[in-house]
Amino acid sequence: MHKTVKIGLIGGGYIGKTHAIAYRSHPVVFGGRVIPELYMLAERDLAIASERAQALGFARATGNWRDVMADPDIDIVAIATPNAQHKEMALAAIAAGKHVYCEKPLALNADEAREMATAAQTAGVVNMVGYNYLANPLIAQAKIMIDRGDLGEIIHFRGRHNEDYMADPAVPFGWRCDRTLSGTGTLGDMGSHIICMAMHLLGDITSVTADLQTVIPQRKMADGTLRAVENEDQAHCLARFHRGAIGILETSRVAQGRKLGLAFEIVGRTGSLVFDQERMNELKFYRSGNQEGEQGFKTLLVAPEHPDFVNFCPAAGHGLGYNDLKIIEVDKLLAAVEAGALPPVDFEQACKIEQVIDACVRSAETGKWVAPADM
Amino acid sequence: MHKTVKIGLIGGGYIGKTHAIAYRSHPVVFGGRVIPELYMLAERDLAIASERAQALGFARATGNWRDVMADPDIDIVAIATPNAQHKEMALAAIAAGKHVYCEKPLALNADEAREMATAAQTAGVVNMVGYNYLANPLIAQAKIMIDRGDLGEIIHFRGRHNEDYMADPAVPFGWRCDRTLSGTGTLGDMGSHIICMAMHLLGDITSVTADLQTVIPQRKMADGTLRAVENEDQAHCLARFHRGAIGILETSRVAQGRKLGLAFEIVGRTGSLVFDQERMNELKFYRSGNQEGEQGFKTLLVAPEHPDFVNFCPAAGHGLGYNDLKIIEVDKLLAAVEAGALPPVDFEQACKIEQVIDACVRSAETGKWVAPADM
Amino acid sequence: MHKTVKIGLIGGGYIGKTHAIAYRSHPVVFGGRVIPELYMLAERDLAIASERAQALGFARATGNWRDVMADPDIDIVAIATPNAQHKEMALAAIAAGKHVYCEKPLALNADEAREMATAAQTAGVVNMVGYNYLANPLIAQAKIMIDRGDLGEIIHFRGRHNEDYMADPAVPFGWRCDRTLSGTGTLGDMGSHIICMAMHLLGDITSVTADLQTVIPQRKMADGTLRAVENEDQAHCLARFHRGAIGILETSRVAQGRKLGLAFEIVGRTGSLVFDQERMNELKFYRSGNQEGEQGFKTLLVAPEHPDFVNFCPAAGHGLGYNDLKIIEVDKLLAAVEAGALPPVDFEQACKIEQVIDACVRSAETGKWVAPADM
Amino acid sequence: MHKTVKIGLIGGGYIGKTHAIAYRSHPVVFGGRVIPELYMLAERDLAIASERAQALGFARATGNWRDVMADPDIDIVAIATPNAQHKEMALAAIAAGKHVYCEKPLALNADEAREMATAAQTAGVVNMVGYNYLANPLIAQAKIMIDRGDLGEIIHFRGRHNEDYMADPAVPFGWRCDRTLSGTGTLGDMGSHIICMAMHLLGDITSVTADLQTVIPQRKMADGTLRAVENEDQAHCLARFHRGAIGILETSRVAQGRKLGLAFEIVGRTGSLVFDQERMNELKFYRSGNQEGEQGFKTLLVAPEHPDFVNFCPAAGHGLGYNDLKIIEVDKLLAAVEAGALPPVDFEQACKIEQVIDACVRSAETGKWVAPADM
Repeated sequence: MHKTVKIGLIGGGYIGKTHAIAYRSHPVVFGGRVIPELYMLAERDLAIASERAQALGFARATGNWRDVMADPDIDIVAIATPNAQHKEMALAAIAAGKHVYCEKPLALNADEAREMATAAQTAGVVNMVGYNYLANPLIAQAKIMIDRGDLGEIIHFRGRHNEDYMADPAVPFGWRCDRTLSGTGTLGDMGSHIICMAMHLLGDITSVTADLQTVIPQRKMADGTLRAVENEDQAHCLARFHRGAIGILETSRVAQGRKLGLAFEIVGRTGSLVFDQERMNELKFYRSGNQEGEQGFKTLLVAPEHPDFVNFCPAAGHGLGYNDLKIIEVDKLLAAVEAGALPPVDFEQACKIEQVIDACVRSAETGKWVAPADM
Repeated sequence: MHKTVKIGLIGGGYIGKTHAIAYRSHPVVFGGRVIPELYMLAERDLAIASERAQALGFARATGNWRDVMADPDIDIVAIATPNAQHKEMALAAIAAGKHVYCEKPLALNADEAREMATAAQTAGVVNMVGYNYLANPLIAQAKIMIDRGDLGEIIHFRGRHNEDYMADPAVPFGWRCDRTLSGTGTLGDMGSHIICMAMHLLGDITSVTADLQTVIPQRKMADGTLRAVENEDQAHCLARFHRGAIGILETSRVAQGRKLGLAFEIVGRTGSLVFDQERMNELKFYRSGNQEGEQGFKTLLVAPEHPDFVNFCPAAGHGLGYNDLKIIEVDKLLAAVEAGALPPVDFEQACKIEQVIDACVRSAETGKWVAPADM
Repeated sequence: MHKTVKIGLIGGGYIGKTHAIAYRSHPVVFGGRVIPELYMLAERDLAIASERAQALGFARATGNWRDVMADPDIDIVAIATPNAQHKEMALAAIAAGKHVYCEKPLALNADEAREMATAAQTAGVVNMVGYNYLANPLIAQAKIMIDRGDLGEIIHFRGRHNEDYMADPAVPFGWRCDRTLSGTGTLGDMGSHIICMAMHLLGDITSVTADLQTVIPQRKMADGTLRAVENEDQAHCLARFHRGAIGILETSRVAQGRKLGLAFEIVGRTGSLVFDQERMNELKFYRSGNQEGEQGFKTLLVAPEHPDFVNFCPAAGHGLGYNDLKIIEVDKLLAAVEAGALPPVDFEQACKIEQVIDACVRSAETGKWVAPADM
Repeated sequence: MHKTVKIGLIGGGYIGKTHAIAYRSHPVVFGGRVIPELYMLAERDLAIASERAQALGFARATGNWRDVMADPDIDIVAIATPNAQHKEMALAAIAAGKHVYCEKPLALNADEAREMATAAQTAGVVNMVGYNYLANPLIAQAKIMIDRGDLGEIIHFRGRHNEDYMADPAVPFGWRCDRTLSGTGTLGDMGSHIICMAMHLLGDITSVTADLQTVIPQRKMADGTLRAVENEDQAHCLARFHRGAIGILETSRVAQGRKLGLAFEIVGRTGSLVFDQERMNELKFYRSGNQEGEQGFKTLLVAPEHPDFVNFCPAAGHGLGYNDLKIIEVDKLLAAVEAGALPPVDFEQACKIEQVIDACVRSAETGKWVAPADM
C-alpha cells in the first residue's frame, strides 16, 4: 500500500499549476513510495477556487485560505501566492503544525524571513522553499563535481538571472512594481534564484557591494494614469564567499532577448563549469591537465548517471523541461516529509538569501560593502 | 462534469511509462475537457503487470493482453510493446472496435502496415502512431512557417536520427538485432522518426536510393555465444519529394556521441530552418532579404506564440522536455477521439513511412532508385 | 642568406589576392627559409595586369600569360583563373619546366585532370592544387587523430559545402552557369572542397550514387535576356570509401543562410569529430569510454599544439582567418619545392576528386552506383 | 607612385611579430595608398635584433632603441616592449617628433599615461595605442548599431576578458607579476582590453567599485625560490557610465578554459548585442518588436557590409583571424598619419583606461566607489 500525503495548495495561477502537474506526475515518475494527494485548493474567492480546483485536479476548493490550515487532514501547505502573503500564510501553517512548502522569495525582506525561519524551526515542521532551478540533475551533478574537488578550490563565480518580461515600457504597473507587495523588484523575483544558486554551489556569501537601477521609472495603471515604479529593474553585485571565492551576481527584468536567462560560470583552480538555463540539459566542463592538443570545454548532456534523471528516462540526452524541475523538487519535499531528508532550500537558507538581497539594497544606498546578516 | 476515456495500455516499460506520465499530466496541463483514465495495464505476466500497474498508476492489471480487447469499458488501446507484436495487437483492438494508439514503428514492414491501416480505416476507429517528436511546438511552428511560405518553395531537406546506444560492441544481442522481431534495425527504430519528420514537413517521398551497413556483425547472447546481427546499424538515403525537393536521410544506432541526434536542415528558395532535438527548445530560422549587414540565422526559443506551448507555461524559454512531447501527443489523440480531429500520424501515414523504409531496403539490395509503394 | 623562389601568378582577382597576401606574409609568419618573390602578374590585358600588379605588390605585369612560361627566372606558376583555363595554362607551365600551383578545381572533368596529372608526373615538376581548407591546423589535427586511431575505425562521414551566393534568382548568369567554362556547377566549385576533405581524411571513394538538381533554371544575361543554367545548383551523393566507411556528401550554391557552409561529422567505432568552417577555430571531439556522467563532445580551440598554428601565435584561441589558410598552403608548396615534401593535394589527388565528380554526374544520369575511375 | 612611411619597431617578440605581419600584409589587403616600410627593428642587443630583423623582414637592426629616435628617416615609432618601458620610449619618440604607435596598456598607471598623453598632444604627433580587438569589423558594426540607436538607449554592459595562461601554479614568476615592471596584473594586461571596449561602445566610465584578488600568491623564480606575486590574478568591477548605463567588468589570468575570453553583452531599451572573441566572426543581435513567434537572437557572420571586411574577402563568413585585426589597426594608424583621421584609441583615450584601472585599485583598497580621474 502506498502512503499518501495530503496537499493544500494556496494559489492556482501559473506557479500553482506547476505544483499541480508535479503532484500528479510525481508518483509515476518517481515510483510512488509516497503519493501526494491533491486535496484542497485555496484561491481568493470560491468561484475562482472551484474553477481552478477542477482545472488542476484538486478534490476540494475554498475561497478562504485559512480553511487549509484548519483542515486536520492536510499534511503539507503549499504557498504559491504573491510575495507579500507568504509570511502570514506560512506562519499560520506552522502554527497549525503543517509542513510548509513556500514559493520563492520566502519573504519581502530578511526580517520577515528570519521570523518565518525561526517559527518553522521551533515548530519542527518540514519547511522548504521552491527554488526550482536547483532541482536540475545537471545542477546536482555540478554540485557533486565541485564538492568532490573536480574543479579544485573555487575562486570565481559569475551568475545572472536576466529576463525581458518588463522590458517593454508598455507593460503595466503590477504588484511586482509595488514595494509593499513585492519588496525588491528583480532582486527578489529573479535575483533570488541566482543568489540561491551561488550559495548552493559555493556556500555562504559574506559581503556584497551592489548597484541598483530603475530603468523605466513609471508605468501605466489600469486607469491610464502613470505610477512610479518603486523598485529596481536591474541590479549588479560583487560578492565575496565564505570559502574565499569572489563573485559577480546580476539580475534584470528588462534585459531584451533573455527569456530564462539564468546562467553562470564557475572557475576553480583546476577546472571550470558553465551553465545556461535556456539550454538546461547541457553542462559545460573544463578540466585542466596534460591533454596535449585536446584541451577544451566538454558539453555534457543530461544522462542517467546524473542525479534523479533516470526516473524520467533511461537514455541520455532525452532532456527535461521546466515543469520537470518541479517534479524533482516535490520529490525532495516528500523525502523531507517522509524520511527526514534535508530540503535543498529550507527557510533558514532562504532567509540567508533574503539577507543577501537586503545587503545589496543597503549597499546600493551607501556605496559600501555590506555583510548579509541578521539586523 | 469531465468526460473520461478509459485507456488500456499494453506494455509497462520505458515507453509505457511515458504514456502513464502523459495520461496523468494531461488533464492538468491541457485543462481537462476529456480525462484519460489509467484503466488497465497489460504485461507479459500478471506479476509484472501488477507491479507495473501500481508503479504507473493503473487501476487494473492483466497478464493477458487480450483482456484489454475483451473489456467493453476500454475506449482506447495503447500499444507500447516490441515491434513484432504491433500487428496482432492492433488488429485485435480494431476488431474489438477500440481506438488504437500504437507506438512506432507501426509494423515490421509495409505489408503489415498496409493491412493494419486498411483494417483501421474499414473499422472507422481512431488510429494514431506515436511519433512523438512531431509534437514539439517548434516543429508545429516550423510546419506553419513552411506551409505559409516563409521559406518559399522547399528545395532541400537533410535529416538524421543518430544515437550511440549500440555503439559499444559489448551491448548484447537484443530483439532489435533480430529481423523477425524487429524488422529493420536502425531504419525502423530511429530512421522512421526522421522519415516521419521529413514527410510531415515536406510531403510524400516518391523515390529513394539507399545504402545500409551492419557495422558490428555479431553480438553476444546471454549464454556468451555470438550471434549474427540481422539488420543494419546505419543507413544513408537520398530522397526525392513529391513537391520537388531533394533530400538526404540518415540514421545510425552506432554514432558515437549522439544521444538524441534527431536533427534537420530545410532550405527553401527564400529561407532556411535548422533544428536539433538535443536542443529541442530552439529553432533556427534564416530569412533572405534586404537586411544590409544584418543577415543571419535567428534562434527562436520556444514561446507561448508557438502551438500548444502555453498550456505548459506562459513564458518563453521555459523549455519543454522529452516527456512533455508525449503529453502533447496525447492531446492530439484525445482531440481525434473526441472531436474527430486528424491525428498527426495515422496508420495510413505510418504505412507510408514503412513503405519508405522498405524502399530503402530494396534499393540497398539493388543499387537502384526505388519508389515507396504498395507492393 | 635566404633563398627566394620567383612566383608568376596568373589571375589577379579575389583568389589571386589571397595568393598575394600569402606570399607577402609567409616569410614573417613561417620564418623565411625560402622567400616567395612576387615576381610577375599576368592578367587578361596589360592595363588590368599593371593595376593589379601594383595593388598586389608584384614587380612585373603582363597581359599575356604565356610570358610567365617564357620567363626563365620564374620557378612557380600559380594559376588563379576560371576553371576552363586551368588545363592549357598548367600544361604550358609543365612544358616550360615550371612548378605548378593551380587553384581548384583542377579541371573541367576527369579526362582533363588525368592529362594534367600525367604531364606533371612525367615532367617531374612539383604540382599542387589549392584546396585551402585542408590547411587548417584543426583539420591537420583531425587527420592526426584519425590516423593514430583516436576514433577507432571510421565508419561514417557526412559532409557538405553549401553557400547561398546564387540563391537569389536575380544573380545574373555567369561563367559558373556555363558548362563549357565551368564544367559542373556547385559540384566543381564547392563540392570539390568537401570531396577533397572526405578523401583527405578517410581515403579514396570507391563508389557513389548521386542526385543533381538545377533549382533556378534560367538567369539573366547582361542584355536582359534569360539564358538556361547548364549545370546543377545542388547535389546530393552517397559514397562508399575504400576502407569501408559509408558517407554522405552534399553541396549547394543556393542554400539560404550558409556563407561558408563547409562542415562535416566523422564517426568512428570509438569516437567522433565535428567541424564547421564557419567556426573554423573549433573542432568538436567525442571519445567513448568509462567517464561516468562526463561523456560529451569537447570543443577544442585551435592551439599551439596543433600543426602550423604556433607560427601565427603562441597562444591558444587566438584564431586564424580564411586568408591565413592560404599562408599555410603556401608553406606546403614551398616545402614541396624546396624539400621534396608531398603536397597535401597534388594533381593526381585532384584528378581523383574530378573522377568522383564525374561519377556523380554519371550516377545522376543513370540512377546507379558508379565507381570513380579513369574512363 | 606609392608613398611609404618608415617604421621603427622596438620589440621583436610575439606582439612585434604581429606588427611585422600587419606591415607586410597591409598594402595588399588595403590597396596601398601608403605603404609601411619595415625600416628598423630594435631589440635589447644587436644579436637578437639582427636575428629578429631578418625573421620579421626589417631592413635594419639595432641593439639600442634610441637609434630609432635618432634616425631622421623614421616616421613612426612602434613600441612593442613590456609595459614599464612604454613611457620612456614614447616620450623619447615624441621628443624626436615621431608618430607613436604604442602597445597596450599605455603605461604603468594613470600618472604616467597622463604625462604621455599631454606630451603627445603638445608635440602634435599622431599617437595611437594598440587595442587590437576594436579593429574587428563586427565591433565596428556593433558601434554603428549602437550609435544609430538600433538598441535604443544602452542600459547595461557586462564584459570580461579572462584567460588561463597563468592558471597553472607552475607558471613561473615573470615580469607581469612584478608591480614595478607591470603595474597592475590582469587589470592592465587584459582588463584594459575590456575597459577599452566598454568605453569605445558606451562612452566614459564615471565611477567604479572593484574587488581584486591574487589567487596564486607565490610563484617560482628561475633559481627555484618562491617570490610573492605583487598584483592581482582576477578583478571584478561594477561601473557606471556617463550616459547612464550600469555595467560589470571582469578580468582574470587564471580562468581555467578561457583562451581568449574577451566577451560582452550589451542591453539597450529595444535590443541587445552579444559578442565573444573566441568566436570573433559572429555577433548576436536581438531586436524587440512585433515578430509574433519569431523573436530571438540573430547570429550575424562577418560580411562585406561590415566596415573594413571587404578588403580581406568579398564573401560573407570567410572569417578573419587574430592577426588580421592588426592589419586593420595599422590601416587606422596610416589613416591618422596620412589623412589626419582620429585613431580608435589615442593616448588621451588610453589615459582614461588607465584612470579606470587606477580607480579599480583604489576602490579595492577603500571598499568605496571611485571616480576615474586625474589625480
